[in-house]
Amino acid sequence: MPLVIQKYGGSSLADADRIRHVAGRIKRTRDAGNQVVVVVSAMGDTTDDLIKLAHSVTDEPDKREMDLLLSTGETQSATLVAMAMQAMGCPVVSLTGPQLGIRTDAAYSRARIVDIETDRVGGELANGRCVIVTGFQGVNQQGDVTTLGRGGSDTSAVALACALRAPRCEIYTDVDGGFTADPRVVPQARQLKEISYEEMLELAQQGARVMHPRAVELGELYSLPIEVRSSFHDRPGTLIHAGESMEIRKHVRGIAHDTDVAKITMLGVPDRPGIAHAIFAPLADASVSVDVIVQTVNAQGNAEISFTVGRTDFNRALQITEELARTIGGTVDSRRNLAKVSIVGTGLQSAPGYAARMFGVLAEHNVNIDTITTSDIRITCVIDEAAVPEAVRTLHATFELDRED
Amino acid sequence: MPLVIQKYGGSSLADADRIRHVAGRIKRTRDAGNQVVVVVSAMGDTTDDLIKLAHSVTDEPDKREMDLLLSTGETQSATLVAMAMQAMGCPVVSLTGPQLGIRTDAAYSRARIVDIETDRVGGELANGRCVIVTGFQGVNQQGDVTTLGRGGSDTSAVALACALRAPRCEIYTDVDGGFTADPRVVPQARQLKEISYEEMLELAQQGARVMHPRAVELGELYSLPIEVRSSFHDRPGTLIHAGESMEIRKHVRGIAHDTDVAKITMLGVPDRPGIAHAIFAPLADASVSVDVIVQTVNAQGNAEISFTVGRTDFNRALQITEELARTIGGTVDSRRNLAKVSIVGTGLQSAPGYAARMFGVLAEHNVNIDTITTSDIRITCVIDEAAVPEAVRTLHATFELDRED
Repeated sequence: MPLVIQKYGGSSLADADRIRHVAGRIKRTRDAGNQVVVVVSAMGDTTDDLIKLAHSVTDEPDKREMDLLLSTGETQSATLVAMAMQAMGCPVVSLTGPQLGIRTDAAYSRARIVDIETDRVGGELANGRCVIVTGFQGVNQQGDVTTLGRGGSDTSAVALACALRAPRCEIYTDVDGGFTADPRVVPQARQLKEISYEEMLELAQQGARVMHPRAVELGELYSLPIEVRSSFHDRPGTLIHAGESMEIRKHVRGIAHDTDVAKITMLGVPDRPGIAHAIFAPLADASVSVDVIVQTVNAQGNAEISFTVGRTDFNRALQITEELARTIGGTVDSRRNLAKVSIVGTGLQSAPGYAARMFGVLAEHNVNIDTITTSDIRITCVIDEAAVPEAVRTLHATFELDRED
Repeated sequence: MPLVIQKYGGSSLADADRIRHVAGRIKRTRDAGNQVVVVVSAMGDTTDDLIKLAHSVTDEPDKREMDLLLSTGETQSATLVAMAMQAMGCPVVSLTGPQLGIRTDAAYSRARIVDIETDRVGGELANGRCVIVTGFQGVNQQGDVTTLGRGGSDTSAVALACALRAPRCEIYTDVDGGFTADPRVVPQARQLKEISYEEMLELAQQGARVMHPRAVELGELYSLPIEVRSSFHDRPGTLIHAGESMEIRKHVRGIAHDTDVAKITMLGVPDRPGIAHAIFAPLADASVSVDVIVQTVNAQGNAEISFTVGRTDFNRALQITEELARTIGGTVDSRRNLAKVSIVGTGLQSAPGYAARMFGVLAEHNVNIDTITTSDIRITCVIDEAAVPEAVRTLHATFELDRED
């Protein structure tokens, strides 16, 4: 019997009606002659509510306790989906991370999956039951509950599909799939029928909130096709896979943008070995997530080091950098209200002219480029946040993303 | 180092402030040189809210899933108490029923504790940590979460104290302890300094909501002294223990009342062997909890069988009884709005005159007695609900319960 792995996000499970709707969808998949394993996130805003609750008790909640607290959200939604399916006469059992045996390392709040036991889940499937699995959580060697970090339920689903050797993994969410650009910014944006792992990864990392990048990476590693689709209707979504006809496709596949960007620049820093480490080690210790880093050295032998961070990390990063400047010399400059706009597509770097066209069309529309970074399949410009809609629409039109492949 | 077991109920953990208050209390106990294991209930109305949530998904939630769902309430409160203690610099760890190893039978929603592993909790104590344990929950042989039924956290605490050979168990709640009568009905009611297991058991079963009867029974079985006290102040509570000077104490120790009583009577039932079984077996199958049963046979050889039930079970019980009457003959009569008033005290039955005095004083105050039942240490009258305040106050004064022992 074919094995189907599905994952439903929190917005698809926000209330009793949606839970029953999801239960019906799972039952139909089973009734069509499949074995079904379903990974669920916590209902709606449950995780955020639990985080707020913890912070109402103490400013710095212990991480081990926090993980156990947060894991209750997925346990609740898993049991409720199972109850709804039982009520429809569908044999089902819910399993938590520890019950199933999703083994992780000991890094609370950002654990990595080490191994997944398949005995219990395999036994339940063999007994004709659907299995509802709590996403986002695992168990470490001590038997303590760990969580995989934000978006971890996507990772749980892909990892389970790999461990159970399922032919593919279906990720149900509140969007229809991957798009050529954010449809709220570009009305002409088109849903992508398929996309390669690398392209999806770049789009996800550059701000397209379709799927968690970690899960895409894992899918790529195991060559597991992943379909992202809506839980609210039955239209096909976007298939993320290795991609066979990449060479003959259009090069630019999508435009991503991310408006959560702030930049800190250290000017007049002495250019000596170890200086970058001296700056970024304390930022890492403070769990500041640094994105784009640019370093230049001027004629006087002084370095200028810039980096971007998300806005929630901005104040902390600025404070650390200013302290550093007092120790190692130099001054600190900063800018909030920046954004990143990226064009993503396999082969972008090897095909000539894309970067030039991108820079040219932004200049034509008076969009000033602050910083540029590139990867093999992506060109990113840091620009003013206010210029994002204009920039994204212009790039979408320039690279003809509104036309069918 | 002395070992102290404490249990905090849901009202003592209703919000972040109370959780911090409880955390401070636990820390003081530890700072006084004790090892501390704490059992917690779910915060405030969490359990009721989760039950409502399940019923919004389906009318008849699967019991296995329901137990796993409800267990999240205690997991949440345990982690929050642990976080608050960590924030105070107190080494602590929370453990769920499965993590600690509270092994139960497989009876979901009303599981019985079979055994408690002491390795993990002992190890944590040896490492200098306080341990916060989720009450109400355990794990069955399959590794699935079970719950002990309402009030089960009291049972968890007493069972842990027995397993860890603690010298006593402290139950913190929102009342000051056991009273000679409900202080809301009798302003002169006095807090009991101590009470025997049997007396507490009778008081608890007859409506005094101080502590769960199962926990008292378990305490008696292991001769574990239990102190019931308030978490809101530091005054001593009520010590439940074997009682050494029972013979010389006052016989009546307390007045209990329970206004959740309805009565069903089957009249003109043929008096033949097996008739009681024919009536009560289907009630048990429907999980109707029957309390007082009275059977009489009249001169015509017809039996009259009465029994009382709680009001939530009344409609179901009436329906079953009326169906039965159509099969086996007889008619059904019923009364809602009844109540039980009990006097409780060791030796009541063996000492002459208590029953007569009780009936006499109720008659003097025009309280009509519907049914009478007795145990070794209790005399209970079923009366009209409306007569309860008068009856309780009168009995409290008659047996001089407002005077010190």
